[in-house]
Amino acid sequence: MIISLEKDISDEKINIISNYFKKKGNETVETSGSDGAIIIVLGNTKDIPHDEVFELPGVKEIHRLNETYTLISREFDNKTRIIEVKNIKIGTNEPVFMAGPCSVESEDQIVKIAKEIKKAGAQILRGGAYKPRTYPYSFQGLGLLGLKFLDKARQTTDIPIITESTGLHRHIFEGKEEEKDTLSNVLNYADIIQIGARNMKSYGFLEEIAKRTKDKKTPILLKRGESATIDEFLGAAEYIVKNGNPNVILCLRGIRGIEPTKYLRYATDIDAIAVIKRISNLPVIFDPSHSSGDRNLVIQISLAAIAAGADGLIIEVHYDPDNAASDAKETVTPDVLKEIIEKSKKIKEIISK
Amino acid sequence: MIISLEKDISDEKINIISNYFKKKGNETVETSGSDGAIIIVLGNTKDIPHDEVFELPGVKEIHRLNETYTLISREFDNKTRIIEVKNIKIGTNEPVFMAGPCSVESEDQIVKIAKEIKKAGAQILRGGAYKPRTYPYSFQGLGLLGLKFLDKARQTTDIPIITESTGLHRHIFEGKEEEKDTLSNVLNYADIIQIGARNMKSYGFLEEIAKRTKDKKTPILLKRGESATIDEFLGAAEYIVKNGNPNVILCLRGIRGIEPTKYLRYATDIDAIAVIKRISNLPVIFDPSHSSGDRNLVIQISLAAIAAGADGLIIEVHYDPDNAASDAKETVTPDVLKEIIEKSKKIKEIISK
Amino acid sequence: MIISLEKDISDEKINIISNYFKKKGNETVETSGSDGAIIIVLGNTKDIPHDEVFELPGVKEIHRLNETYTLISREFDNKTRIIEVKNIKIGTNEPVFMAGPCSVESEDQIVKIAKEIKKAGAQILRGGAYKPRTYPYSFQGLGLLGLKFLDKARQTTDIPIITESTGLHRHIFEGKEEEKDTLSNVLNYADIIQIGARNMKSYGFLEEIAKRTKDKKTPILLKRGESATIDEFLGAAEYIVKNGNPNVILCLRGIRGIEPTKYLRYATDIDAIAVIKRISNLPVIFDPSHSSGDRNLVIQISLAAIAAGADGLIIEVHYDPDNAASDAKETVTPDVLKEIIEKSKKIKEIISK
Amino acid sequence: MIISLEKDISDEKINIISNYFKKKGNETVETSGSDGAIIIVLGNTKDIPHDEVFELPGVKEIHRLNETYTLISREFDNKTRIIEVKNIKIGTNEPVFMAGPCSVESEDQIVKIAKEIKKAGAQILRGGAYKPRTYPYSFQGLGLLGLKFLDKARQTTDIPIITESTGLHRHIFEGKEEEKDTLSNVLNYADIIQIGARNMKSYGFLEEIAKRTKDKKTPILLKRGESATIDEFLGAAEYIVKNGNPNVILCLRGIRGIEPTKYLRYATDIDAIAVIKRISNLPVIFDPSHSSGDRNLVIQISLAAIAAGADGLIIEVHYDPDNAASDAKETVTPDVLKEIIEKSKKIKEIISK
Repeated sequence: MIISLEKDISDEKINIISNYFKKKGNETVETSGSDGAIIIVLGNTKDIPHDEVFELPGVKEIHRLNETYTLISREFDNKTRIIEVKNIKIGTNEPVFMAGPCSVESEDQIVKIAKEIKKAGAQILRGGAYKPRTYPYSFQGLGLLGLKFLDKARQTTDIPIITESTGLHRHIFEGKEEEKDTLSNVLNYADIIQIGARNMKSYGFLEEIAKRTKDKKTPILLKRGESATIDEFLGAAEYIVKNGNPNVILCLRGIRGIEPTKYLRYATDIDAIAVIKRISNLPVIFDPSHSSGDRNLVIQISLAAIAAGADGLIIEVHYDPDNAASDAKETVTPDVLKEIIEKSKKIKEIISK
Repeated sequence: MIISLEKDISDEKINIISNYFKKKGNETVETSGSDGAIIIVLGNTKDIPHDEVFELPGVKEIHRLNETYTLISREFDNKTRIIEVKNIKIGTNEPVFMAGPCSVESEDQIVKIAKEIKKAGAQILRGGAYKPRTYPYSFQGLGLLGLKFLDKARQTTDIPIITESTGLHRHIFEGKEEEKDTLSNVLNYADIIQIGARNMKSYGFLEEIAKRTKDKKTPILLKRGESATIDEFLGAAEYIVKNGNPNVILCLRGIRGIEPTKYLRYATDIDAIAVIKRISNLPVIFDPSHSSGDRNLVIQISLAAIAAGADGLIIEVHYDPDNAASDAKETVTPDVLKEIIEKSKKIKEIISK
Repeated sequence: MIISLEKDISDEKINIISNYFKKKGNETVETSGSDGAIIIVLGNTKDIPHDEVFELPGVKEIHRLNETYTLISREFDNKTRIIEVKNIKIGTNEPVFMAGPCSVESEDQIVKIAKEIKKAGAQILRGGAYKPRTYPYSFQGLGLLGLKFLDKARQTTDIPIITESTGLHRHIFEGKEEEKDTLSNVLNYADIIQIGARNMKSYGFLEEIAKRTKDKKTPILLKRGESATIDEFLGAAEYIVKNGNPNVILCLRGIRGIEPTKYLRYATDIDAIAVIKRISNLPVIFDPSHSSGDRNLVIQISLAAIAAGADGLIIEVHYDPDNAASDAKETVTPDVLKEIIEKSKKIKEIISK
Repeated sequence: MIISLEKDISDEKINIISNYFKKKGNETVETSGSDGAIIIVLGNTKDIPHDEVFELPGVKEIHRLNETYTLISREFDNKTRIIEVKNIKIGTNEPVFMAGPCSVESEDQIVKIAKEIKKAGAQILRGGAYKPRTYPYSFQGLGLLGLKFLDKARQTTDIPIITESTGLHRHIFEGKEEEKDTLSNVLNYADIIQIGARNMKSYGFLEEIAKRTKDKKTPILLKRGESATIDEFLGAAEYIVKNGNPNVILCLRGIRGIEPTKYLRYATDIDAIAVIKRISNLPVIFDPSHSSGDRNLVIQISLAAIAAGADGLIIEVHYDPDNAASDAKETVTPDVLKEIIEKSKKIKEIISK
C-alpha cells in the first residue's frame, strides 16, 4: 500500500500513521514520490480497512501494491534500477558482459582468461572459488585460494570480479577448514556477489547477505532457482532489498523442463526476461551457458536473450574449453565471446529504438 | 545407413543390394549424393552386420545414420530445405511472416485483416476455420464457410493462406455435418496445411496427409506437440516426409513448463530453434502468440526467436484484438506486426553475417 | 445449469424452456433427478440472466454447473457410473484387472497369454493390434490380423478384449493398406475400445467414435494425454459422452515430469485418481506399466493406485517378458500379476470400509 | 569401489592400501563386510586402474560402486537402516506416523494438538518454529519461543518432536535477532532435525549439520527439493552421511509438475518411494499434506504411499484446521489422522507378506 501525504506534513502526523500500521504488524517506509511525500506500507495489507486509513491525519490518497514483491516492482517505482560496479552501469541501453571460467583452477589460468575476455570486450570477470556440487565426491572449488587468484587477475587487468558465496558454513579445502565463512571471504574480494540457483530459497542466508552489505551496498547477482516461479524469484529478491541492499541483479539461467537432457540441460527461460522487465525494476542478466549446457548453442541463445530485452549476459569462457575443470561441454572460446558481444550490441541498438 | 556405390553401378547390382535389405525388413531409397550414387537404408539398421553389407556387389562405403529421423537430418542432407509457396521462399536469409486472426469470424473480418497484414509486410495469411477446442461446448470454427472466406481474402489481396485440418472426421457446423472430411476441404483451399499441436502424434493422420499430398507436395506446417520432445517432434515430421511429402515446415509454439499460467501460457521453447536448426534440414517457424499467451510479450519473444535463428514467425493479428472471437489476450494489432517485421529483418541481417 | 421443474410439468412448457435456451445457443437435455424432472442446459451459461430463466413457465430452481465437463461431473450426477462388459462391472468395490501383452505378436502368443492371465485372476485381455509408434521405422502392429488373433484368444478363454483404435486412417501391414479404417475394424472385434494418450486431444476422432458407438454403447477406455491437465482430460471424456456414448472409462498412465527417464518413464499420476474420483462420476483405471516403465516397480505402483481409489488396473503381462516384441522392460509375468490381484483385492476391502 | 581383503590382514598392509588411494585423492573407510574385512574407496574411482589395485598387498577382490551416492546405496549395504528415536524405530514393518500443525502458534495450541495426535496413534509430533516463507512479509515463525512450546508439549505427552532448522543465520522475531543460529537452537530441542525442501541443495549447510551431530547422531529428516531428481536427492543425503551422521530419513513431499495448481499443489511423487526403496538403504517417509495441498486428498495419498512401500507418514494435523496459522487448506483433523493410521497399518501388513 502506498499512501500519498499532504504537503509539508509534520513528523508528528507521520508518527501517528506509522504507529497505526505497526500495530497491524506492517512496517512502513517514508520516502518521496514524484508527487510529494509518501509512506509505503509493506507486507499484507489486504485486510486493512481503507476508511480507517483515510481517517489518519495527513492522508491524501491510497494506492494498493502487489503484496509479495513491492520494493522491486514497477508499480512501486517504474524506473529501471541502474547498478554500478566501478565504472560499469548495469540496466542501461548498453548491454553488460560477464565472462570467465566455471571454476578458478590456478593463478595462471584465471589471469590468462581475464586478459582474453577483456580483449574480447567483456567488462566483468566471473569465476567460481566455492562450487556447489551435486555429489560430495566432486571437486568443490579452491576456496580462499581461488579468491586470491581472482584478485590477482583483477589487479592485472583492472576489471571487476563476480564470484559466488555458497553459504554461512566454512569451506574445507585439502582437508582444512577455512577460518571464515564463505560469505565473509567473498565479501572481502568480490565486486559482485553471486548467489546460486541452489540457494535462492535459503531465505535466512539472503537476509544475512543483505545485513552484511547494508553499508557498502555491494551488488548481488541472484540466480533463479531451477524450478522457481517468477513470483518466487522476485520474492527472494525482495528479501534482499527489504533487508537493506537495493542493488540486486536478477540472473536467469534456465529452469527444469520436460525435454530430457539429450539436447538441452534446462528449458531456456528467455520468456521470463520479457515478463520480469515488465513487472520489476531490477536489471536482468541471462546465462546462456548453464541454461543450454551446450557450447554449440551459446551464440544463438545469447543473441535471443538480448533481443528479448536482457541487460547483459554471463558466459562461461575458457581459452581451452575442452580441458576446463568443470562445465567443459558448455564453455566457449574468447573468439566466440567476441562475436556474441559485437552482435549483441547491434541487436540491443535495434530493439532500443 | 547410407551406402556409397561404385561408379556406373549396374541396375542388377542395385537390385541385389535392395533385395538384401528388403529381406531384413528395411526399405531402401536410391539417389545420388555429392560423390556419386548412394543407397539409403531406412529404419533400424543397428543389427545389420557391416561385413555382410561389404560383400554385396558395388558397395564402396558405409555410413551410419540417426535411426529415428533420417530423411530430415543434416547428417543425411546438410542443405536447409527451402520450401516455396507461390513466390515466397521459407528457409532462406529472408524471414517469412505469417499473420492473421486465431479464428475466421466473417468475410469482412478476414478480408480486412488480410489487407492490413499485407500492408504491414506479412506474406502469408493465417486463420482458423476448424478449431480444436478443449471443451465440447466452445465455438468449433466456421468450417467450410470459413475456408470460403479465406479464399475470398486471398483473391482480394493475392497472398497465400495457411489453415488447419483437424482430422479425418467431418466437421459439424450449426448442427449439419459437412460432406467431406476436414482434410479434404482444407486441401481444396489451403496453400499451406497446418497440423496442430494436438494432432502431432496422430501418426495415422500424418501418413494420410502425406499420401494425399504426394503429387502436389502442398507444404505442411507441423506444430510441436505441447509436451513432445525434440526427437518426438522430428519423428512426426519424418512420418510425413517418408510417406511422400518432403515439404514440411516445423513450427514451435511453446511447451508445457513448470511456471503456472500466471504470466506465461507455455514455456517458450526458443532453445529448440537453435537445436533443431543444427540437426535437421527443415525450416523452423516460431509462434510467439500461443507460446506466450500475452500480447505484451509478443514483440520481445518474436525478436528473440529470430535472433535464435528462426526462419519466420506466425503471429495472431486482429484490427480489434480485444474483440477477437478467440485468443484475444494474445492477439496484437497490425502496427505491432509492422514493428516486429521491420526489426526482425534487421536482426536477421546481423546474425546472418 | 440444471433447472428443477414443477411436478407434472407439461410438454408445452418444456418446449418453451428448451426454445429459450436454443436461441441462446445452448443445447438442453431433459431427464429426471432425485427430486423430479429436470432440464440440463449444456455449454457456457455464464451470461444467461437467472431472472429471465425464473420467468419461464414451470421453473422451480436453478443450479449452476461446471461449464467444461458437465455430464461426467459429480455435481451433475453423484452416482459413480458402473460400466458393464459382459458380466464384469467396472466402478464397484470389486477392482477390475485388464492384462496382456503390449503387442499381439502371433495367435499362439496371445492365446497362451489369455489363458495365463485368466488363471492369474484377470478378467479382461489387453493386446495391441494397431500400435502408435514415435518413429515411422518401428513395428506398427499386425493390424486386422492381430484383431483376429485376439478374437481367437477370446473364443478360447471366454474373456472380453480391449484393444486400441489409432484413428480414421487405414492401417498398412506388409505394404498393403487395409480395406477399412482402424476404428471400423476395432469396432468389429473389441469389447472395450481403447483410445491412446496420443489421440486424447484429437477431438474430431472422439466425436466420430461416439457417433459410431451411439447404439451399442461399446465402452471406451480413454487414456490421459501425456501432458493433459485433469480439466483437459475430463473435457475430452465429455466430448464422447455429449456425442452419445456415456460408457467412458478414464485411464491414467503417467504424465511428463521433471525426473529424467533414468528411473521412471513418466511421473506416476496416482494423485489424479483421488482428484478425479472426487469430481467425476466416471470409473478410473490405472496403468502401472506405462507410467513407471520398469517391471520392478509395477507391484508397488499397482497397489498404490488401488489404495488411492482406482477402480482397476491395466497391466502389461507376458509369459516371457524379456522377449516381448515391445515394452519388454516394463512387462511382468503372470505370477506377478497374480500377486497384484490378490493384494489389490485385500487393499480395496480395507479402504472401502 | 569396495576392496575385499585377505583374512587377518596386517595394519601395515592396510596402510599401504589407504595411502595408495589417498594419493589419488580418494578417502577410504575400513570396515568389515559379510565376508571379512573390506576397504571402501569413496569418490570417483573410474580412472583407477584395477591392475594397480590388484598389485597392492592383501587385496582379494574389487567391486565397483555407484560413484555418486555410495554409503546410502543398497549396493554398498543392502540392509535397510533402522533409525531409532527414543523407543520408536523407523524403517521396519511397522509404519511410523509424525503429525502436528504446520506452525507452532502458542503453547496451548501445540500441547492440545500433541495430546490429540498421540490419542489418534501418532508417535512423533511435528511443528514449525522456523518457517521458510516465499515472501518476506509473511509470518516467519515464533522461533526459539516456538521451540520452547514444543518442548512443553513433549514433556506433557512424552512423545518426541521433529522441527525444522532453516539455516546458519539468526532468526528475527518481533524485531529481535536471536542469540544463536537456527541450527544451534533446533539441536538443543529437536529429537529429529528437519531440513526443508528449499535447503536440500545448500550443501555447505548439510555438511555443517553433519559435523554438529557427529557425536549424538541426531536423526535428520531430509526433504526432497521441489525439483530435485532422485539422484540429486540421494546425493544430498550422501553429504550428511559422508560427513559423519548416518541417521538420515528421506522425506518425499511432491515435486513440481505440469498440472497447474487448480487441483494439486505438487505432483505426488509416490513412484519415487518405490524407486528409492530399491536403490537406497535409508528409510523413506511421505508427506501427503504438502504434496497434495488439499485436505480432501490426504487420506487417499497417505494410503497410496504406504501401499508403495513408505516407512511412515508426516501429516499436518490441527484440531481446528480452518483456523490454522498456515497451510490451513491441507490440514486434517485428528479423526482423519486416526483413520489413516488404522488403515495404513492394515495395508502395511498386506504388502509385507
